Amino acid sequence: MTKKRIYLNAFDMNCAGHYSAGLWTHPDDQASTYKDAEYWTHVAQVLERGRFDAIFIADVLGVYDVYEGSRDAAIRHGVQAPLNDPAFVVPIMAQATKHLGFGLTASTSHEHPYIFARRMSTLDHLTKGRIGWNVVTSYLKSASKNIGKENQIGHSERYAVADEYMEVVYKLWEGSWEEDAVVVDKEKGIYADPDKVHDIEHEGKYFKVPGAHLSEPSPQRTPVIFQAGASNTGQKFAAKHAELVFISTPTPQTTKQTIQSLRQEAEAAGRNPEDVKIIASFTPIIGETQEAADRKFEEYKKHISYEGALALFGGWTGIDFSGYDPDDKLEYVKSEAIQSVVENFTNADPTKEWTVREAAEFVGIGGLGHVEVGTPESIADAMEALVAIGIDGFNISYVISPGTFEEFVDHVVPVLQERGLVQKEYEEGTFRKKLFGNDRLPEHHTANQYRKQPVLV
Amino acid sequence: MTKKRIYLNAFDMNCAGHYSAGLWTHPDDQASTYKDAEYWTHVAQVLERGRFDAIFIADVLGVYDVYEGSRDAAIRHGVQAPLNDPAFVVPIMAQATKHLGFGLTASTSHEHPYIFARRMSTLDHLTKGRIGWNVVTSYLKSASKNIGKENQIGHSERYAVADEYMEVVYKLWEGSWEEDAVVVDKEKGIYADPDKVHDIEHEGKYFKVPGAHLSEPSPQRTPVIFQAGASNTGQKFAAKHAELVFISTPTPQTTKQTIQSLRQEAEAAGRNPEDVKIIASFTPIIGETQEAADRKFEEYKKHISYEGALALFGGWTGIDFSGYDPDDKLEYVKSEAIQSVVENFTNADPTKEWTVREAAEFVGIGGLGHVEVGTPESIADAMEALVAIGIDGFNISYVISPGTFEEFVDHVVPVLQERGLVQKEYEEGTFRKKLFGNDRLPEHHTANQYRKQPVLV
Repeated sequence: MTKKRIYLNAFDMNCAGHYSAGLWTHPDDQASTYKDAEYWTHVAQVLERGRFDAIFIADVLGVYDVYEGSRDAAIRHGVQAPLNDPAFVVPIMAQATKHLGFGLTASTSHEHPYIFARRMSTLDHLTKGRIGWNVVTSYLKSASKNIGKENQIGHSERYAVADEYMEVVYKLWEGSWEEDAVVVDKEKGIYADPDKVHDIEHEGKYFKVPGAHLSEPSPQRTPVIFQAGASNTGQKFAAKHAELVFISTPTPQTTKQTIQSLRQEAEAAGRNPEDVKIIASFTPIIGETQEAADRKFEEYKKHISYEGALALFGGWTGIDFSGYDPDDKLEYVKSEAIQSVVENFTNADPTKEWTVREAAEFVGIGGLGHVEVGTPESIADAMEALVAIGIDGFNISYVISPGTFEEFVDHVVPVLQERGLVQKEYEEGTFRKKLFGNDRLPEHHTANQYRKQPVLV
Repeated sequence: MTKKRIYLNAFDMNCAGHYSAGLWTHPDDQASTYKDAEYWTHVAQVLERGRFDAIFIADVLGVYDVYEGSRDAAIRHGVQAPLNDPAFVVPIMAQATKHLGFGLTASTSHEHPYIFARRMSTLDHLTKGRIGWNVVTSYLKSASKNIGKENQIGHSERYAVADEYMEVVYKLWEGSWEEDAVVVDKEKGIYADPDKVHDIEHEGKYFKVPGAHLSEPSPQRTPVIFQAGASNTGQKFAAKHAELVFISTPTPQTTKQTIQSLRQEAEAAGRNPEDVKIIASFTPIIGETQEAADRKFEEYKKHISYEGALALFGGWTGIDFSGYDPDDKLEYVKSEAIQSVVENFTNADPTKEWTVREAAEFVGIGGLGHVEVGTPESIADAMEALVAIGIDGFNISYVISPGTFEEFVDHVVPVLQERGLVQKEYEEGTFRKKLFGNDRLPEHHTANQYRKQPVLV
């Protein structure tokens, strides 16, 4: 490819309804079969047929319970609840594909890094190096409460914990087992040379891990680091650690602002700003003609759950919208948290006075991410326009699954391939190799300081 | 089948050397490819061909570090180190089979029950009800140290924690979501009825979990409960909770004593003693003739790692054998912990004065479990004899993998099938249905008290 290649991820979650609240009620939607291995096998094979780089699997460890001060709306409308563990669908999809990468969400707030590090190494071994980790610090109070933490620790301390968590896992993944520690010499009877296995001797504020990593080095060692940090602290964290940063912004203007800010942070953190690839949420609604696409969009809208969308929106903003009338103007919703969100809506249509109902309908298809309704060509145009303002790739969100993915693969991917914007065939090798040309994190990444020897990239 | 059917499990671990220390050096052994999905796919398919009930996957979260006060011997000889997470090989094996069950080891000491409960529910969904859980409380100090617990909590408190842990997960699995809570009604737009989803409101000494289970009910709800409790407290725990109890005893005498004691505990706990199925460790070494089997046994012995076997044995007993000469008599090893072990050896051969070297050789093939060397017929005889004293089934341990499993499936299983002792075809349904005739735990199990409604078995 002559042009910069666009990265394509799919965005999914181990539940019936991820972003588009209530759309599981659409007759063609199969996301409510998320409990079955068959759903994941099929989705993975569709994506690999479309030469997607990866599937990014979101997760939370709680229920959205701000709307009416209860989790009832989320459960009733299947809005990210019930919700299964995202990790176990990865080996299933890996067995059904050869190249597809995996961006697995896991929180630094709920599991000890010593145990978590072995989980990721195991997955990296079993998938032959196709694992990415979406680092989250967890924002739902309902999650903290259920693991016995009465008051969730504050936002900035969560990031301090996360930062030390990263240090521990980098030490385990990068600094514990030397490259040639494992020999598996049947003649001499030596499995590994213990002198080349190092205790990490970590003693920090939040964690104390004296020993060595339990797993031998996996193909990538550290999984490809994803992060979705919208806040200021989140952006600093992403700029330091992340290789792929996921943003969810509804308009080109907000997208552009976020990209600039992220690249500045990366530069401030001593990295090449281009080392951080920025991936935008993008929900395509595809028709043979613009009219057909518009009709499809209108039909999808009928399946939005008003309560479900506000349960999600309320969880993100902390605002209980049940106290407002659907026709109340959004600007009357008194809350600091809403301001940036209102700006998003205002940017989407500055002449419009948004009501709560309209906001629910807006969020109900594709969440706060970019939604594009059109022909395969016009959707490719929109993607190309976003790339022109600095986006490196997309998290393709579904309205209905696997329908949205199938339509995108069958109709939009060929257009993008024709334009030389996405790959027609996979490169060989690990997920990081496919993305960045190397199996291992580069030397200028912060993890490098924990290595005992030069990295083999 | 007219006779009581014998349950057959395979015993494996996500590492190169499970029980038979050093045997990964055998030219035919492939256990050192444990990092690859292909190893697990193959093992699972061999076992399903042999109509095994399940594969039981052991785990520890530390390294054996008693020998020479260091983890070096374990790492050098690949003795349960390095060691990957056991959970992720389950979906891989499930995709490669249709009926095989899974006994997954997980500790009640390392992960919060609210998070763990979702993991198991997810696996039970994805495998269509083929999950078992081997409940361990963790005995390795090296594990506690690395998750920041300087001093491992005492044995009896570990079981108190485990008991409350079970209460929490039973409440989540059995008492949170009613049988008809999930409706997935696309017409009415109702995914689940929130009034039929109950917050468990657990407030105990060790855990506080106010909310509802994150996952909807899986085919078995509670996974089939395995336990391996040799201690007195362990046996009481098993008698209360376990459906399959794994014992590892080298002789019929010790086996018989352990069975009697377990059945008495089950009765004391108010259960039908026969509801607890007892599974013995059994390592078969199979030849066409007795002489061929003996030769194979001698050849295997050459691959035992002396240091590796004592690293394992030292981890189990807490004794650092590096301070003793290989020719020292075992009875000179001064330690209370050794007494019951010495009794095992004495029972195996009461006329013999065991040396440390001989003990290493004994442990080096099949650990402390029953080892049988012979023809398919004589091995079937030995199994039948163990069944006659009260054993319900076997954990078949490998000397070399998958060789031991393949030979057992190809040569011993047909003999057992011919005698009507093991199944020729699988029953349909979940793991528990295949074992006990019901998908769900029976009403007289302790979990029943946490149900909000009668169980659908």
